[in-house]
Amino acid sequence: MKRTEQHACFGGRQEVWQHESTCTGTAMNVAVYLPPLALAGEKCPVLYWLSGLTCNEQNFITKAGAQQYAAQRGIILVAPDTSPRGSDLQGHAVADDEAYDLGQGAGFYVNATQAPWAPHFRMYDYVVEELPALIEAHFPATQVRAISGHSMGGHGALTIALRNPARYRSVSAFAPIVAPSQVPWGQKALRTYLGDDPAAWAQYDAVAMVKAQGREWMGLSAPSNLPILIDQGTDDPFLQEQLRPELLKTACAAAGQPLELRLQPGYDHSYYFIATFIGEHIGWHARILRAGRDESGKV
Amino acid sequence: MKRTEQHACFGGRQEVWQHESTCTGTAMNVAVYLPPLALAGEKCPVLYWLSGLTCNEQNFITKAGAQQYAAQRGIILVAPDTSPRGSDLQGHAVADDEAYDLGQGAGFYVNATQAPWAPHFRMYDYVVEELPALIEAHFPATQVRAISGHSMGGHGALTIALRNPARYRSVSAFAPIVAPSQVPWGQKALRTYLGDDPAAWAQYDAVAMVKAQGREWMGLSAPSNLPILIDQGTDDPFLQEQLRPELLKTACAAAGQPLELRLQPGYDHSYYFIATFIGEHIGWHARILRAGRDESGKV
Repeated sequence: MKRTEQHACFGGRQEVWQHESTCTGTAMNVAVYLPPLALAGEKCPVLYWLSGLTCNEQNFITKAGAQQYAAQRGIILVAPDTSPRGSDLQGHAVADDEAYDLGQGAGFYVNATQAPWAPHFRMYDYVVEELPALIEAHFPATQVRAISGHSMGGHGALTIALRNPARYRSVSAFAPIVAPSQVPWGQKALRTYLGDDPAAWAQYDAVAMVKAQGREWMGLSAPSNLPILIDQGTDDPFLQEQLRPELLKTACAAAGQPLELRLQPGYDHSYYFIATFIGEHIGWHARILRAGRDESGKV
Repeated sequence: MKRTEQHACFGGRQEVWQHESTCTGTAMNVAVYLPPLALAGEKCPVLYWLSGLTCNEQNFITKAGAQQYAAQRGIILVAPDTSPRGSDLQGHAVADDEAYDLGQGAGFYVNATQAPWAPHFRMYDYVVEELPALIEAHFPATQVRAISGHSMGGHGALTIALRNPARYRSVSAFAPIVAPSQVPWGQKALRTYLGDDPAAWAQYDAVAMVKAQGREWMGLSAPSNLPILIDQGTDDPFLQEQLRPELLKTACAAAGQPLELRLQPGYDHSYYFIATFIGEHIGWHARILRAGRDESGKV
């Protein structure tokens, strides 16, 4: 791992690292915020942040104002890029893609099975396996993890946590895509990366996953008890067409899956919305990360 | 005035406006944060923020995390662009300038007297006269003002406040250029915009101004009593060559000008540094803006 940036920040340190990823076969950038407690040598729990369409590892660390809360709570923040990048990616369509919602900046946190994407676009494995192993080996991090994200990254956080409830203590999201199988952004990405098989899509669809929990899908025979917190602005221009949080609310209610969905009047899809509520999210995660969660999933 | 952006943010509203400036003869962008108190119809004091080299009206509002503190304290934040812009600016050298430290993005908060800059590069008059008049006419703002800024903008804040102590209750700065006449960035800008006359330079040099206070320069016969707060990171790469805060400290001590200069160990020149301490600056300004200042300039 090579450190490319470091900045003192709220008594801790904001760093950016680059490493050669075995999952994506590319150099990946990842931002790591170390709170004062970690700099003092104490191992801290980790909150992973997955960003949205068009973002890289910079957006969250420069715009969310999250570091102050992580500093107060003793939480390490880890924010990876949203896709592999590079002009040397196999396949002309990958290297030169110009769509904001496909290819570079739009990995959708899946393992692609379709050409030309399959060799590199493996953000699911990257976030679930490779990145935590790297973080826990190179930084003063415990194996106590939470995950959050925005929009496409909210989709990533929800699906990754629901598929791996033993690996994360809590999951939250800002304006997530909850049902990619049912909305234009998600349908375009899932068809391109995974082909036309509905079963493949369902592996990466939070609403489909919650609905399937009661049917012992993916080995889950009961609600995960994983606590979920979602904030959604009511003035978000993507709310009706792309995000549709009510689909997740209905599915969770039917499945007995804990969910706190908060509609925030007047807020939009921007980092001004994230900045306003990220302190509450980090506080919520910190209480769970540092206290454990009870059997009901309530905190 | 035309509103080009608005976002709910910490219970208030972050807006960006565009207007035709009579000072610069161009369209100018200005960011305005209205705290909840202002949205409720109460007039609030205003903190003006002047950004540094290469910045426009976006940097401060997206990266500093200042809105939360302004929301708590009931302060309006106003952050203008750092120069006139546009391909139609008179003079080839202005329109096509490529230097990061001259021309567009680098107005240095002076009224240029030299060709081809003089017709448009009038950021001093813009910030001192036109902008406050506009803000106080169009927003729920009182005439109680403070001013702050970063680097080139710290230079702007200090020189503008020292020349107009009756117009501002307090001034603060992050890593300001305190003596532009003595450092490369400042010398290049002052020579280009003002020509070679040292007396012209001294009008835009905080250290020169403080030194001159005791000599009845510019009508000031005594220290201004204007409270000054400065934060400076010790790991700032520009500290020794461009910033040199010790020159201001010495001048203020000799002149009896109040100054609190804080060296912050390990911090650099970035917005991570600003974000860490902007809450303390806004709290400091707010106490002065809402309480007035005593005769000694102490707060």
